[in-house]
Amino acid sequence: MDVISVIRTKRDRGELSPEQIDWVIDAYTRGAVADEQMSALAMAILLNGMNRTEIARWTAAMIASGERMNFDQLSRPTADKHSTGGVGDKITLPLAPLVAACGAAVPQLSGRGLGHTGGTLDKLESIPGWRALLSNAEMLDVLESTGAVICAAGDGLAPADKKLYALRDVTGTVEAIPLIASSIMSKKIAEGTGSLVLDVKVGSGAFMKTIEDARELASTMVGLGTDHGVKTVALLTDMATPLGLTAGNALEVRESVEVLAGGGPADVVELTLALAREMLDAAGLPDADPEKALRDGSAMDVWRRMIQAQGGDPDAELPVAREQHVINASSSGVLTRLDAYAVGVAAWRLGAGRARKEDVVQAGAGIELHAKPGDRVVAGQPLMTLHTDTPEKFAYAIEALDGGVLTADAHSAAAADFVPAPIVLDRIA
Amino acid sequence: MDVISVIRTKRDRGELSPEQIDWVIDAYTRGAVADEQMSALAMAILLNGMNRTEIARWTAAMIASGERMNFDQLSRPTADKHSTGGVGDKITLPLAPLVAACGAAVPQLSGRGLGHTGGTLDKLESIPGWRALLSNAEMLDVLESTGAVICAAGDGLAPADKKLYALRDVTGTVEAIPLIASSIMSKKIAEGTGSLVLDVKVGSGAFMKTIEDARELASTMVGLGTDHGVKTVALLTDMATPLGLTAGNALEVRESVEVLAGGGPADVVELTLALAREMLDAAGLPDADPEKALRDGSAMDVWRRMIQAQGGDPDAELPVAREQHVINASSSGVLTRLDAYAVGVAAWRLGAGRARKEDVVQAGAGIELHAKPGDRVVAGQPLMTLHTDTPEKFAYAIEALDGGVLTADAHSAAAADFVPAPIVLDRIA
Repeated sequence: MDVISVIRTKRDRGELSPEQIDWVIDAYTRGAVADEQMSALAMAILLNGMNRTEIARWTAAMIASGERMNFDQLSRPTADKHSTGGVGDKITLPLAPLVAACGAAVPQLSGRGLGHTGGTLDKLESIPGWRALLSNAEMLDVLESTGAVICAAGDGLAPADKKLYALRDVTGTVEAIPLIASSIMSKKIAEGTGSLVLDVKVGSGAFMKTIEDARELASTMVGLGTDHGVKTVALLTDMATPLGLTAGNALEVRESVEVLAGGGPADVVELTLALAREMLDAAGLPDADPEKALRDGSAMDVWRRMIQAQGGDPDAELPVAREQHVINASSSGVLTRLDAYAVGVAAWRLGAGRARKEDVVQAGAGIELHAKPGDRVVAGQPLMTLHTDTPEKFAYAIEALDGGVLTADAHSAAAADFVPAPIVLDRIA
Repeated sequence: MDVISVIRTKRDRGELSPEQIDWVIDAYTRGAVADEQMSALAMAILLNGMNRTEIARWTAAMIASGERMNFDQLSRPTADKHSTGGVGDKITLPLAPLVAACGAAVPQLSGRGLGHTGGTLDKLESIPGWRALLSNAEMLDVLESTGAVICAAGDGLAPADKKLYALRDVTGTVEAIPLIASSIMSKKIAEGTGSLVLDVKVGSGAFMKTIEDARELASTMVGLGTDHGVKTVALLTDMATPLGLTAGNALEVRESVEVLAGGGPADVVELTLALAREMLDAAGLPDADPEKALRDGSAMDVWRRMIQAQGGDPDAELPVAREQHVINASSSGVLTRLDAYAVGVAAWRLGAGRARKEDVVQAGAGIELHAKPGDRVVAGQPLMTLHTDTPEKFAYAIEALDGGVLTADAHSAAAADFVPAPIVLDRIA
């Protein structure tokens, strides 16, 4: 076996054999295949694709590159969730304790943000004292005692994926559906959950810009999970506009706590409940009542215990950015566009996200929205508040919003015809 | 400018801007763009192509990465030739002194063999004492005093190409017409010749397997040369079967000397004269008579002086391999197939070529052919003789010939219909 013949096979639109895939993933993990060889192969895969058989084998080879976890000794069925990432997507925060309160065990190995989408760990780290890094034993402990745990994935899970993901990030080869699907699913399958609900985002703020691409990614991942014995369901959900009324770390924690307290923005509550029902169904708990768990405070109880178990103080005041800047509506009418990508980039420029892995995020930075698409606004009314510790970035952030916010005259056809998109666009099982 | 946006442009089938091309070539030469980023870009170029404007700019950027030579002070017009490489392609050896004998100056910066095609420098190094490595001053000196010089290209010419070629070699990205064309032409233009004749090989033993690909490569290169003020012509020539009756280093020197002595195989003489006429025409010497220069010994005189000027002894005995193995015809009939690629790989396995740059070649190794396609053969008659210093390689070499040699019954339709291909297939100016 040699790497050039593997690269040539895919370059010339051939199908990679199981032996070629196993060999190249193993050799790359060991360092016998060089980065410049793997990046050429990744580009050939991006441009020429892989079929279902190849993707399944590629995923299996990445799982085999590391350890596998096992939750069989837990007293409850496990249910996991993965989102492909969006702007204002804080759903994991209320969802994990909610599903745990309904009887499932929820192990959430999460990541940090890169680019314009936020990261779950960055958000939780704005809670004073909270630790993302747990040993496997600590993780199982928190999970067994509270029902939910949100922490960083260990280095032992799918190391081939870790290396390949870092390479794709610097070689323009992130946006390949076979590589995205196998990257997500290799980690989730190695993690050992019994069931998995995927939240595949669609729209300007997501990786997948069109419903067709999102559907292809979703059905590829559902197929991979099912083949590995993980009960897998995907929801395609809207990411044309941010989720909820906040994008930023502490800002999103505050909004998540509102949801757990029985309040919060309607779209966040709707998506949290939709995903909770799917997770409980997949975990074999179809009769659980997540709405009740929000109402009666049992989800909030799990949240508090989960935060405390990882060193955090659920009653501590959350950090607030040093400076605020309010953007007002320049005309009256109906808000018809509030672009997720524009808001995500603006929040990132304010300090909520990072450009490189080694950057530090600002806990208080981000954007608070005072109106959502479909809302009537009056000229001069606040549309959004920008938060940052580095006020010299305001102008740079406002530039990102250019063209991303549109208001139509209330008597215009654009306003009359405007219907906000539903949150859940499709379901793939 | 950042490298990921450059990679994405080509990945998404866009046109690279002049600024993007200049920046990426310069940054790669300086080491600011990493190998794994350039290989992803090379694969995107291989699969999505570059248009004429992009290829011209890419070539200009590679020329600008290093020094340019200048032959203006020479008393004669310069004429250069480049072959895209084939099996038994020793044409440079008789051609350079022949064209010099007719009044042009012939600077031949040549390479070593890699893979199944031989290298001109490897062949000449089988002459005792001959040196490939000359300083720029020595090179000009040999060129002025003898009319011809064949030597290794210095490190200063197109260093971007040197680095990129080594990268393509290990990443499966050699076979991209825009990259092949710009690689060849950047070196030839930087070398500073006034005119250039390209010998673009077509067939199993060449990079270009089809006449269409060869035509595209040839017209791309002719366009690039013309745009840079170099009078450029290309011949498309057959490489379905080896050139002449030898493939190997000393074996090919011996055959070249036969041609210079007025003898040699008809196909080698025909192609040498065809290329000589093109070079002399392009150099503004249309009335020169290369046939006469072969007959009257003046080409041989230049050869002897050229070899001596680089430390070689033209009268020394050439190395002979320690062991020979004869392959006989297994049936009588007409030889209808003698595959160039099969013979090239067999010669390479016998020790005539190298697998890696650091390997040493055997001067005496290779293959002597006793029949060519179209010849009648009798069962038991010698078809070819294999030469090597490492007889344990005979079986491995013979394996490469499997299916590459076919004889048809003299009374069969295959034999009746067989017409050997002409040497020169097309001309592009």
